[in-house]
Amino acid sequence: MIYFDNNASTPLDKDVAEVVLKYMCEEYANPNSLHEFGVKMDAKIEEARFRIAKSLGCMPFEIYFTSCATESINWALRGVCKANTKYGKHIVSSNIEHSATLNTLKSLESEGFEVTYIQADQNGEISLEKLSKVIREDTILVSIMAANNEIGTIQDIKGMSQIIKEKNKNCYFHVDAVQIAGKINFSLKEMKCDLASFSSHKFHGPKGVGILFKKERTRIFPFITGGSQERGMRGGTQNVPGIIGTALALEKSFEHLEYMKEIRNLRDFMALEIEKMGGKILTPISEKSVPNTLAVFFEGVRGDIIVNALSDEEIFVSTSAACSSKGVSGSKVMKALGYDNEQSKGMIRISLSYLNNREETEIFLNKLKNILVFLNF
Amino acid sequence: MIYFDNNASTPLDKDVAEVVLKYMCEEYANPNSLHEFGVKMDAKIEEARFRIAKSLGCMPFEIYFTSCATESINWALRGVCKANTKYGKHIVSSNIEHSATLNTLKSLESEGFEVTYIQADQNGEISLEKLSKVIREDTILVSIMAANNEIGTIQDIKGMSQIIKEKNKNCYFHVDAVQIAGKINFSLKEMKCDLASFSSHKFHGPKGVGILFKKERTRIFPFITGGSQERGMRGGTQNVPGIIGTALALEKSFEHLEYMKEIRNLRDFMALEIEKMGGKILTPISEKSVPNTLAVFFEGVRGDIIVNALSDEEIFVSTSAACSSKGVSGSKVMKALGYDNEQSKGMIRISLSYLNNREETEIFLNKLKNILVFLNF
Repeated sequence: MIYFDNNASTPLDKDVAEVVLKYMCEEYANPNSLHEFGVKMDAKIEEARFRIAKSLGCMPFEIYFTSCATESINWALRGVCKANTKYGKHIVSSNIEHSATLNTLKSLESEGFEVTYIQADQNGEISLEKLSKVIREDTILVSIMAANNEIGTIQDIKGMSQIIKEKNKNCYFHVDAVQIAGKINFSLKEMKCDLASFSSHKFHGPKGVGILFKKERTRIFPFITGGSQERGMRGGTQNVPGIIGTALALEKSFEHLEYMKEIRNLRDFMALEIEKMGGKILTPISEKSVPNTLAVFFEGVRGDIIVNALSDEEIFVSTSAACSSKGVSGSKVMKALGYDNEQSKGMIRISLSYLNNREETEIFLNKLKNILVFLNF
Repeated sequence: MIYFDNNASTPLDKDVAEVVLKYMCEEYANPNSLHEFGVKMDAKIEEARFRIAKSLGCMPFEIYFTSCATESINWALRGVCKANTKYGKHIVSSNIEHSATLNTLKSLESEGFEVTYIQADQNGEISLEKLSKVIREDTILVSIMAANNEIGTIQDIKGMSQIIKEKNKNCYFHVDAVQIAGKINFSLKEMKCDLASFSSHKFHGPKGVGILFKKERTRIFPFITGGSQERGMRGGTQNVPGIIGTALALEKSFEHLEYMKEIRNLRDFMALEIEKMGGKILTPISEKSVPNTLAVFFEGVRGDIIVNALSDEEIFVSTSAACSSKGVSGSKVMKALGYDNEQSKGMIRISLSYLNNREETEIFLNKLKNILVFLNF
């Protein structure tokens, strides 16, 4: 099996699996219980929070645990909007965001908020100039993804933070950081955003754990109300094994960054080879994209046909985002970048991780070549 | 170690742990991916949904996966309220609900909904007569817990369903069913409620998985918006290992019900012995409570002192609900039942599971006796 669908989900790291198993089977107390066993679990959660904060470059009390990045994004967007209506009801985002952001914004629009969507350029870049122009006095929130899930383009988050704060000091900046963790080096301190969302299973951690970073003094309402967990900001018994596993997975993801240089070389090599086969490259092949992601298309060939043909050979790549690929309605990101409906159905997304190697890319390229011959491309 | 805090969280079943580990380590594809590996995971989720529906007595398409019961309760309450304002803005609940319900209702009150809280009697029972009286033409939702988390009292859910539908056919009935799973036999078909919330880690499943049952045609808005997962009703990559583990844990919880008779005998035996020691019994010692739960207090003795003294002997019981026990502010349920503030600080909750036995109860009773002597009670 060759697994090249790491932007959708990553294999669980072996060391992380061990930790998760231990806390699932042996350390099962509720971290909110008063007795020794519960207090010990609570201390383990706080230790995980401390380690995660250290990895991400923020303070431990700025870290909140959720069930997934989609929950984090819902919380950030809905929580900020509802807590800041006295400053305005205007939101800024882009047209290439993940469906977790776009569908939540749609819901906020139906509740009376106004959203301005910045058009990304054909490389998926969102210009600082455009951002600067759309921020108004009543803008309370900007939400932008740090790296695009489909084509991998990285945004200038630091530059955006600066512009946002210059234009309107009451406006908060939420970053969907799901696709940068484990791929590039970053620090929340340098990014200077107010909120950021992460998903553990995208960096070889367990499914079912998300993180919301919320800078101190950011005005936000809780989203899931209930018990006093997470300092009263997120009810529900914490997923102790998942949280402790996430702390380790995140630390290891930073340790693996060195190997990402090799992954970038492999990605660039595949891009060249695919161009030779007549493929068109959607991902900017430069430092402006995450090193593991390569989105391409072959004019006139449907992506799902290639994905399925590769799948028969146990090579797993994806059409567009996993969350919307079922519909086979084409890549929303490609449409947003100006490609037509037919072209958008052609996307093939190849996304690697530190577990992949050169041999796999060569096997993949050979199989792809054969499939294209078979399809008379 | 003697673990008597199963209403807070249960040890993971060994077979469930094996299944979770397998799907964490080997079957890591995103169930929404188009390729074979993803399709297989999607099929596994649907199989789990089918098995859970069979266990609970409902249809598979009526089952939705969430991250915890608190999320399920937030979704049920907020989702129904927002989707049904044209029928009214009145909600009925009780004064002994879990903080997930009470704090969400508080939040809905601040958004303009009106809530009537029925007073439970001193045994924790909510009378059908009182319920019948407070349902109005503009009541859109009733939310009641099937069994109380602190004292274990079971409500007549079937009787409530009948009254609600007779009084107002537009009114939905949500049941917080967290504390009945694995403790008594039940079927959603017989309960006739419209929505029900469950938590996997309360029936020896993994932490981080909740269930929302939603009867067909129940008008409800999504709560976590994003991708098209869960038929467009709950965004976020599904926690595949957790969901598959939950299906097995739930099946096994029904298989263990036979042993709950023995657990009931042990509970009744402990109640008798504790009464002999001068303790007062809060749990109705009858079929009107779940078999595993025993809440008691010793007049003039703070519960946390006893809990900590037992904890030093590696015997783990709880003061009141885990979610609020940190505050040491006393049991909210006891206060709701008419006990004074000092008395409410006395609660000790003993909650067993099928993993406990007679020997453990005897050791516990002996230690408790010694502690009371030491405290000059």
